[in-house]
Amino acid sequence: MKKNDKLLIIPLGGLGEIGKNMTVFRYGDDIIILDSGLAFPEEDMLGIDLVIPDMSYIIENKDKVRAVVLTHGHEDHIGSLFYLLRQVDVPVYGSRLTLGLVEGRLKEYDVSAHNLIPVAPGDSLTLGQFEVGFIRVNHSIADALGIYFKTPVGTIVHTGDFKIDQTPVDGQMIDIHKFAELGNDGVLVLLSDSTNAERPGYTKSERTVSVALDEHFRSAKGRIILTTFASNVPRLQQAINSACQYGRKVALLGRSMVTVITKAQELGYMTIPEGILISVDEINRYPDRQMLILTTGSQGEPMAALSRLAARNHRSLELTHGDTVLIAASPIPGNERSIGRTIDALLRSGIHVVYERTSGIHVSGHASQEELKLILNLTRPKFLIPVHGEHRMLKHHSKLANELGIPKENVFIGENGQVFEFTAETGRMAGKVTAGKIFVDGLGVGDVGNIVIRDRRQLSQDGVLIVVVTLDKSRGCVLDGPDIVSRGFVYVRDSEALMEESRKIVKTVLERFENQPITQWAPLKAGIREALAKFLFSKTGRRPMILPIIMDL
Amino acid sequence: MKKNDKLLIIPLGGLGEIGKNMTVFRYGDDIIILDSGLAFPEEDMLGIDLVIPDMSYIIENKDKVRAVVLTHGHEDHIGSLFYLLRQVDVPVYGSRLTLGLVEGRLKEYDVSAHNLIPVAPGDSLTLGQFEVGFIRVNHSIADALGIYFKTPVGTIVHTGDFKIDQTPVDGQMIDIHKFAELGNDGVLVLLSDSTNAERPGYTKSERTVSVALDEHFRSAKGRIILTTFASNVPRLQQAINSACQYGRKVALLGRSMVTVITKAQELGYMTIPEGILISVDEINRYPDRQMLILTTGSQGEPMAALSRLAARNHRSLELTHGDTVLIAASPIPGNERSIGRTIDALLRSGIHVVYERTSGIHVSGHASQEELKLILNLTRPKFLIPVHGEHRMLKHHSKLANELGIPKENVFIGENGQVFEFTAETGRMAGKVTAGKIFVDGLGVGDVGNIVIRDRRQLSQDGVLIVVVTLDKSRGCVLDGPDIVSRGFVYVRDSEALMEESRKIVKTVLERFENQPITQWAPLKAGIREALAKFLFSKTGRRPMILPIIMDL
Repeated sequence: MKKNDKLLIIPLGGLGEIGKNMTVFRYGDDIIILDSGLAFPEEDMLGIDLVIPDMSYIIENKDKVRAVVLTHGHEDHIGSLFYLLRQVDVPVYGSRLTLGLVEGRLKEYDVSAHNLIPVAPGDSLTLGQFEVGFIRVNHSIADALGIYFKTPVGTIVHTGDFKIDQTPVDGQMIDIHKFAELGNDGVLVLLSDSTNAERPGYTKSERTVSVALDEHFRSAKGRIILTTFASNVPRLQQAINSACQYGRKVALLGRSMVTVITKAQELGYMTIPEGILISVDEINRYPDRQMLILTTGSQGEPMAALSRLAARNHRSLELTHGDTVLIAASPIPGNERSIGRTIDALLRSGIHVVYERTSGIHVSGHASQEELKLILNLTRPKFLIPVHGEHRMLKHHSKLANELGIPKENVFIGENGQVFEFTAETGRMAGKVTAGKIFVDGLGVGDVGNIVIRDRRQLSQDGVLIVVVTLDKSRGCVLDGPDIVSRGFVYVRDSEALMEESRKIVKTVLERFENQPITQWAPLKAGIREALAKFLFSKTGRRPMILPIIMDL
Repeated sequence: MKKNDKLLIIPLGGLGEIGKNMTVFRYGDDIIILDSGLAFPEEDMLGIDLVIPDMSYIIENKDKVRAVVLTHGHEDHIGSLFYLLRQVDVPVYGSRLTLGLVEGRLKEYDVSAHNLIPVAPGDSLTLGQFEVGFIRVNHSIADALGIYFKTPVGTIVHTGDFKIDQTPVDGQMIDIHKFAELGNDGVLVLLSDSTNAERPGYTKSERTVSVALDEHFRSAKGRIILTTFASNVPRLQQAINSACQYGRKVALLGRSMVTVITKAQELGYMTIPEGILISVDEINRYPDRQMLILTTGSQGEPMAALSRLAARNHRSLELTHGDTVLIAASPIPGNERSIGRTIDALLRSGIHVVYERTSGIHVSGHASQEELKLILNLTRPKFLIPVHGEHRMLKHHSKLANELGIPKENVFIGENGQVFEFTAETGRMAGKVTAGKIFVDGLGVGDVGNIVIRDRRQLSQDGVLIVVVTLDKSRGCVLDGPDIVSRGFVYVRDSEALMEESRKIVKTVLERFENQPITQWAPLKAGIREALAKFLFSKTGRRPMILPIIMDL
């Protein structure tokens, strides 16, 4: 250990965005990675399945990586582990439920899960020059952890995703005593969840959901279908409790619902009384008022179970008049329209749908302003790095800290790739490392970039028009064609005249090159492209991609 | 007039959706069309510019159409007039501002505006067997109208888009007396705006915005940039008033901002003191604290002025630290992410941004529950058709009516194309006419349908791969190729091996057809497509569109 080593904190994802959380902690030659998440593609990332952080910095320093530590099992925190572990084979520490979920995901990608090491809240261990400790926090998934690092320059605390739930469903409240103790001993840097930094007050307890659920369970005459994120184990537990109380059997719809509940039950995070779970095929054996169906699709995802039910094309279940659908989730920004469509489709079939924000069947999993302040006051950090949020959320979080007396120059709002450098006394933004988005498309990781996306965008707007000509290059004479094929441009059937005119225009271009040896294709192709683009735009107002292909005999 | 004629009300747009409002009123051989709007494309309508209602019913009955009457000048009420008037040349009645905006739009489409007839609130006129009257209402655009029809079977009232603003900015309150009078005389059917039927209470007065604006104008040290919908004339007037009061000049940014303000001023709907408007080029001649800039882009539209300013690529203006951006609009569902990105980009440049719902600089233009109840109580209709809303909004509106004592069987929730049939005593849903979405893409109206969209979707997901082969058909022998060209699939540079293997696979298929005359292309093309699709999916997990093109010599 060099005496003058500095602690570097480098977020590779999760700053200026909600998603793909990943932060590097480096001291000397020791690196610990906190979380390895994914993001879902934005609407202009056509055809992309997932987005993961650019991990170049980690790969370049792979010999220094001592471990990955995980805060909890949400996809935006574990979803790129499959790729990280292919690059760097290091131990992964996390709570049992987190690792249970990780294991399932790694299996899907054929990545070995040989080095997953469970930890419990209160545990601490030494990794290189770091002492790493785990703190229980509340969140919309069970077994979520905050993580602290004791380093030669001081203590760093990372809240993970959290809220302060004073009446948690599983009785396991966030360990505010540990945060207080760390604060007493002195915290150099706090990294804290900014998702709800714009929301005044306190986030409601998950417990309040059960009161609201109870009412619906008491009054519903038909089947109850409840949808929430499959990973929201506490909420699912509450729904199952209500089902027990009101004598309903429970069926699970949707792959991830089955996976998570099976795993959570196996690891003891859920208590499901014997005989209450039934399979989807058995639903019709029970009277409607004795059924609870837990399903995926709370975000209106077109392929999820709830959307299929709404569209009446689920293979094993049909909802009917008298059924009640409880949407126990709030829309992730961008999903409002698809959720609205799902709700409308359900209502049209005469199904009772409970979805309003005011219905009380959903509460957030993230801390609001008063909770953020409490964590700041408990830990009394010298420096704050707001994390896990879009820029305006980080900004709001920063303002809160200023109000509590943390000076502006001690709060760092950065971007992915920013290096935050700390000594025992000082902190500063010190340069940048490579950071960015890597696209996962099908089996490919990183083989689709901006050019491919740009082409897809053009194709998606006005389609493609292919012009094929067979030439004798040496004599500059057309042997066959031009043939024109188009897709996604116009109805071919209704546009024969347009295609015929297009062929004539290509012929006119070809005539300019006729009866002389053609030495380069480029001018000919460019000529065809320009003449056709101009003609087609004048006739249709569209700009399809034009691909001239020349065969030479 | 046949004594037993029935009144038909047929919505062709606006039911089960927000957008493309258009309703047909028919009695015997007389048809009046109320509004002719457009909708903006949903995210899966790739490359589509606009969506308009299917007007088949109108075109089939064009000889019966007596007039178009317009409620107000928003695009979702006037945006498909350009197409309607091409089909049916009839007079168009609307308020002066509405017609001013219509004129501009028709000019863009080269449609003659020879038959626009201005009306004022309080006017009524006879059109066929209809007496049509116009009622002043409040909305987020000036000069908005409700419309009633006195017909042989009874009186029909259509609210248009409305709110009840008791302290309107222009002093022109909705004519509740007229609604009361109609109610006293007896209303058979009410058609009423359902946009905010889910919102309890009252919508705030536009006047409250001025209080909030005032505060920002008083405290802002630098330039103020205010964005709202260009058509929100009352709001723009308030901003200009504040500018006057605090000694700021006003510049207009964005084409529609210039068009609407010019038109509104010309027609006397806005009062702009002499010398306060300056051109964008003059902005730098004035100190920052003497500038107000009104701009488009409140929805984060990528090409609008505000987005360009945020991205720092506006050709004539650059925002700097110290400027204040006021976003006086709320996101239309689906636009949250793009607005968020715009705000973040502005904040990153150190610009102060006011955007919170709680900031008071925006209020809705649509009636909330208490206002909807008031209109119901004033007009006391026998039947209600909730309009202008997605299904769940119509449903909520219907529930409100039930609470006020209108029986369930007298409230009709329908869809576009539904025929509502009324006599003096009875009302019922009576069959359907053609209704639906017509896509406008570039210059084409209706020439892009599901097949083209499906192709664009496939192209947008995984791109296209074109295989060209030149054959001698009579001998079944390959003369040139196979050549493979791909776009939007993979980086061509990184995938030479993949392309080489693809060529081999095509060759193998070709060999099966070799040395014999080829009578049909279809089996050969299908063989190439299948073999390649299977191979490419196994290697990449993607399904590009595969287009085999065969040239025959």
